[in-house]
Amino acid sequence: MGYPELKNDRLIKALLRQPTDTTPVWIMRQAGRYLPEYRETRKRAGSFLDLCKNKELACEVTMQPLRRFPLDAAILFSDILTVPDAMGLGLYFETGEGPRFERPVRSRADIDRLPEVDPEASLGYVTGAVRRIRRELDGAVPLIGFSGSPWTVATYMVEGAGSKDQAAARALAYRDPSLFQAMIDMIVETSTTYLLGQVAAGCRALQIFDSWSGSVPEDAFSRWCIAPTKEIVARVKRQEPEIPIIGFPRGAGPSAVRYARETGVDGVGCDTSLPLAWIGEALQSLVPVQGNLDPVLLATGGPELDVRVGQILAELGQGPFIFNLGHGILPDTPIAHVERLVRLVKGDGAA
Amino acid sequence: MGYPELKNDRLIKALLRQPTDTTPVWIMRQAGRYLPEYRETRKRAGSFLDLCKNKELACEVTMQPLRRFPLDAAILFSDILTVPDAMGLGLYFETGEGPRFERPVRSRADIDRLPEVDPEASLGYVTGAVRRIRRELDGAVPLIGFSGSPWTVATYMVEGAGSKDQAAARALAYRDPSLFQAMIDMIVETSTTYLLGQVAAGCRALQIFDSWSGSVPEDAFSRWCIAPTKEIVARVKRQEPEIPIIGFPRGAGPSAVRYARETGVDGVGCDTSLPLAWIGEALQSLVPVQGNLDPVLLATGGPELDVRVGQILAELGQGPFIFNLGHGILPDTPIAHVERLVRLVKGDGAA
Repeated sequence: MGYPELKNDRLIKALLRQPTDTTPVWIMRQAGRYLPEYRETRKRAGSFLDLCKNKELACEVTMQPLRRFPLDAAILFSDILTVPDAMGLGLYFETGEGPRFERPVRSRADIDRLPEVDPEASLGYVTGAVRRIRRELDGAVPLIGFSGSPWTVATYMVEGAGSKDQAAARALAYRDPSLFQAMIDMIVETSTTYLLGQVAAGCRALQIFDSWSGSVPEDAFSRWCIAPTKEIVARVKRQEPEIPIIGFPRGAGPSAVRYARETGVDGVGCDTSLPLAWIGEALQSLVPVQGNLDPVLLATGGPELDVRVGQILAELGQGPFIFNLGHGILPDTPIAHVERLVRLVKGDGAA
Repeated sequence: MGYPELKNDRLIKALLRQPTDTTPVWIMRQAGRYLPEYRETRKRAGSFLDLCKNKELACEVTMQPLRRFPLDAAILFSDILTVPDAMGLGLYFETGEGPRFERPVRSRADIDRLPEVDPEASLGYVTGAVRRIRRELDGAVPLIGFSGSPWTVATYMVEGAGSKDQAAARALAYRDPSLFQAMIDMIVETSTTYLLGQVAAGCRALQIFDSWSGSVPEDAFSRWCIAPTKEIVARVKRQEPEIPIIGFPRGAGPSAVRYARETGVDGVGCDTSLPLAWIGEALQSLVPVQGNLDPVLLATGGPELDVRVGQILAELGQGPFIFNLGHGILPDTPIAHVERLVRLVKGDGAA
């Protein structure tokens, strides 16, 4: 597509199971509140959603962590709930309360009432930001695009907000599987278009966040987590076979193995609870893995951080492996700890 | 101790790995809000904590589900936070907000400030309720006593309330492990006395709830989940070698295997996310297992409930196995669904 050749392709190589000179590293939510320059930009933008929708500022905060740390990837600054917002649910953020939808979906009538939407038009602000970031990056590192998994997005659409156990969504899936399937199909459709739009605009890799895949039993996991993810992966790959896709089934536990086998993703993100030896044996033998430092440990730092980073590298570093956290970086993380982490991963721990 | 012989000892037999005529079944939170008679009693008692502390009414609500369903065990009506309450933290419940502590523990000074407490005296209302329940049960089924695991209890003590990711407790454990160890040791001490008191008063089995064992990486899981649980189990068994103990490491994923191997518990509770074939191979081959129907599915019911109960029984029913939910029963669960569930487990699905 005429985009500049990547100067740093460690992330892509790891996902293609090729050797890399050092372990690639990026950090979930690396563009975020632990950075003073992010907080500054956010203040200029207004709300979190204003920041997502402002191409120039979304580009700015995407670039900020790369100016500080020699990370091996940029990740688009956005939110998994832009997709249901584009589907007409009316996303807004209650101060201190997290995301809310004006029009949650709990019945066939709720679905029928959703306006006709063109995701390409209504998510144009995202692809606009991607194009801008691509120009700024100029091939320095790959830009990762992303979406939520259909299951995780559906839980928010049904609950109308974040929730402790996604009980309303699970109940709807049990009570009316064909309605729930219709909702999942809509999300698959929009997410596929959305991810392909991100790739067309300049993303070189994708991640699908399944934050709530741990809340369901295996049969629901198969139907609502694995199957729709597999569908998105297949459709994206049909059009963009060279773009690697990372799936992150948070909390899936032993079911992450089936996820790795069946979805077709190129890499699997591991949450903090997964033991390293288990990841090595059960997952890394199947696919490249990514993870899984405890973000709380990164925030506290000290000698225990060094020890744990060493353990992760010793256990998984022979690859294919991408170093990351097991969950998003915490707002109270000192910048010096992130610097230390990246140095350790890059084999420069003495510095 | 002169307590009446058990008329129904299926639960105990399953935990001793002995065959039973039918699969034993009980339900986490079986004494609770889905029962109209519970809501009635609760109204008379006042607050949730008032109900826990009222021997007569705590006995009454413990007995209520047994009058409706042929369950194979009673479980003491209480709360895992009675232990830190007895330790002087000042438990109260904010309406609609869950548990709170007046004096959370975040520093050595906070610990030193805690009053001298005799858990036997300050938890006398619990043993009083147990004695009363024992008399009412008259050997019909075993009464299960319980406590929270030290890790889970500690998370509430540090956070001062429930929390999404137990980040404050995890941070304290990383930042000041010796302070955290002191707190864990106090909880081990009090919980051991507490559980032994429950047994002396008439409990025939125990369960240790580790609701937040899924939030930590494996090294923290070893130190804060496995080691203190092992200590409690060893100390209880030294004095009461015949009382079986079930551990419930919710969200532990693959680490549940190490938990089963290392803690010394007689049975392991499985949450809803664990796949049946995995439980069978990895866990049930080591210890009796308990679980793991999705409580949301019990609340929605219908043919899918029958199918899933059948799958669980087919996969794990050869034993040693105790049928239960993967998490507590939901308040909106219809009583007819619980009746149906128990009939299905007892092989009377046609009725």
